[in-house]
Amino acid sequence: MTEIKFDDIEKAAVRIAPYARRTPVLTSASLDDAAGARLFLKCENMQRVGAFKFRGACNAVFSLDDAEAAKGVATHSSGNHAQALALAARLRGVPAYIAMPRNAPAVKRAGVEGYGGIITFCEPTVESRESTLARIVAQAGAEVVHPYNDRRVIAGQGTAALELLADVPDLDVVVTPVGGGGLLSGTALAAHGAGKRIRVIGAEPKQADDAYRSIEAGRILPSVNPQTIADGLRTSLGELTFAVISREVEQIVTVSEEAIVAAMRLVWERVKIIVEPSGAVPVAALLEGGFRAPGKRIGVIVSGGNVDLDALPW
Amino acid sequence: MTEIKFDDIEKAAVRIAPYARRTPVLTSASLDDAAGARLFLKCENMQRVGAFKFRGACNAVFSLDDAEAAKGVATHSSGNHAQALALAARLRGVPAYIAMPRNAPAVKRAGVEGYGGIITFCEPTVESRESTLARIVAQAGAEVVHPYNDRRVIAGQGTAALELLADVPDLDVVVTPVGGGGLLSGTALAAHGAGKRIRVIGAEPKQADDAYRSIEAGRILPSVNPQTIADGLRTSLGELTFAVISREVEQIVTVSEEAIVAAMRLVWERVKIIVEPSGAVPVAALLEGGFRAPGKRIGVIVSGGNVDLDALPW
Repeated sequence: MTEIKFDDIEKAAVRIAPYARRTPVLTSASLDDAAGARLFLKCENMQRVGAFKFRGACNAVFSLDDAEAAKGVATHSSGNHAQALALAARLRGVPAYIAMPRNAPAVKRAGVEGYGGIITFCEPTVESRESTLARIVAQAGAEVVHPYNDRRVIAGQGTAALELLADVPDLDVVVTPVGGGGLLSGTALAAHGAGKRIRVIGAEPKQADDAYRSIEAGRILPSVNPQTIADGLRTSLGELTFAVISREVEQIVTVSEEAIVAAMRLVWERVKIIVEPSGAVPVAALLEGGFRAPGKRIGVIVSGGNVDLDALPW
Repeated sequence: MTEIKFDDIEKAAVRIAPYARRTPVLTSASLDDAAGARLFLKCENMQRVGAFKFRGACNAVFSLDDAEAAKGVATHSSGNHAQALALAARLRGVPAYIAMPRNAPAVKRAGVEGYGGIITFCEPTVESRESTLARIVAQAGAEVVHPYNDRRVIAGQGTAALELLADVPDLDVVVTPVGGGGLLSGTALAAHGAGKRIRVIGAEPKQADDAYRSIEAGRILPSVNPQTIADGLRTSLGELTFAVISREVEQIVTVSEEAIVAAMRLVWERVKIIVEPSGAVPVAALLEGGFRAPGKRIGVIVSGGNVDLDALPW
């Protein structure tokens, strides 16, 4: 398989620049005190659709040539990727077909429809999602854009770290959450490009620790129906992301559910930003002690901020 | 009385620069759509102690000469100003004496004590607060720093707008909340300094509309025990702030309680930042229609982000 190169991330950055937000990097003295290090939060919770997912989806959609794009894009996802793909497709003026389980929360359906996505409902099983997606692709000729196991998506996600490193060039470490691994892979490739050797760490819930176990075992060991509050991190690594992470990432750190909620609340209270549980997982790793780098300059990709304000976990 | 000059704000900016945060300016496409204008949010919710109040308190404390400062500073306040003054004093290494009613919420006491403030409890009446403060001043020789009716404080608060205008020079309008009027006064002086004639608007709750009524009447008409969710805006204008606002501010807009909560929630959901009800009041003015400037570039001072996450108003 063709490797994803630093150059692909640089090209992605140029491609998505007219559409994506260049998100701010925030710091907080009290968060630094709590972590014993200097943290630089790359606020992808402020990205369009409220998550870094827009970067990858946008890069994929705008990588297509006009004939390909005209047939539309498709995915089966009920999360941020579906909204991101719908918005990216709308910005290009092409259809986005989303296979979504009948039991998906109304707010997620409304989100996708709000961005103009065309939903086809399916049963809430992997088989039904895949067969529904296959049918859409057969009918429309749409291009499938996987949420993370796609080199265009991985390159797009890497642009967040590229911006972070441009704003804060002398980082020692970058920590990101890891679910399917698209963000972690892209970040690692960005952090190791152009001769840089910044340490890259992935953080995931103990209760969805497939990346930790997979890297230990040297082969993909998916999580089966994991139960974690970090809903963005319930997915498991794919072939592509496993390969990149195996090669480029120093360590996968796991964190408790309690630490995730505590870190989320601390970021709300001290940094005054809304982060979703998944986005707080790297902070949880630093506070719980799964990873420590005393006195170092640590970049943290705050992956998203989509939270139900009527159902907070405290 | 000596006028507060633009020059005082510029000096304040230099004085507090080593201690205060230069807060970010954020934008949001969906907020712009809702307001029909381009909004630039100056995020004083991310200022130290979670509110712009640190600027004024810091300027006051660092304006004192060493002999004055050594005797400490004092105020009667149970809100953000008390915490701000305590932190500013600690940074200068001098005592801060805070007269606080016995029934002040535990979280506010803890906040002041956390920054090293020395609390003297009093009865929850204006008379008791003032006599307690007078006793402290007589005993320690401490310098009283009023939360808003103080030219050093007003000059300090103006530094937020100074930074905003440096970052976004071509603003048409600036909107701030108005309680005691320190922030609005400082903002107006900053926005009208150096030959600039940017329109300045104050926004306050209908249920604490003393600024609106006072400007209409041409004399100070305090609110008596006003009931509003915007707890930072329950205070009334002072002599100094009334004079500046009368001269420099184009309009005071009042907003409903419902609009404050709706604006607060919209900012949380769309901009992904934590704002307190008072900080959402200018946004409420733009969304409810009390003030409109279609297509214009509007600076908004988001005054603070200190919210009890266990008691949200929705």
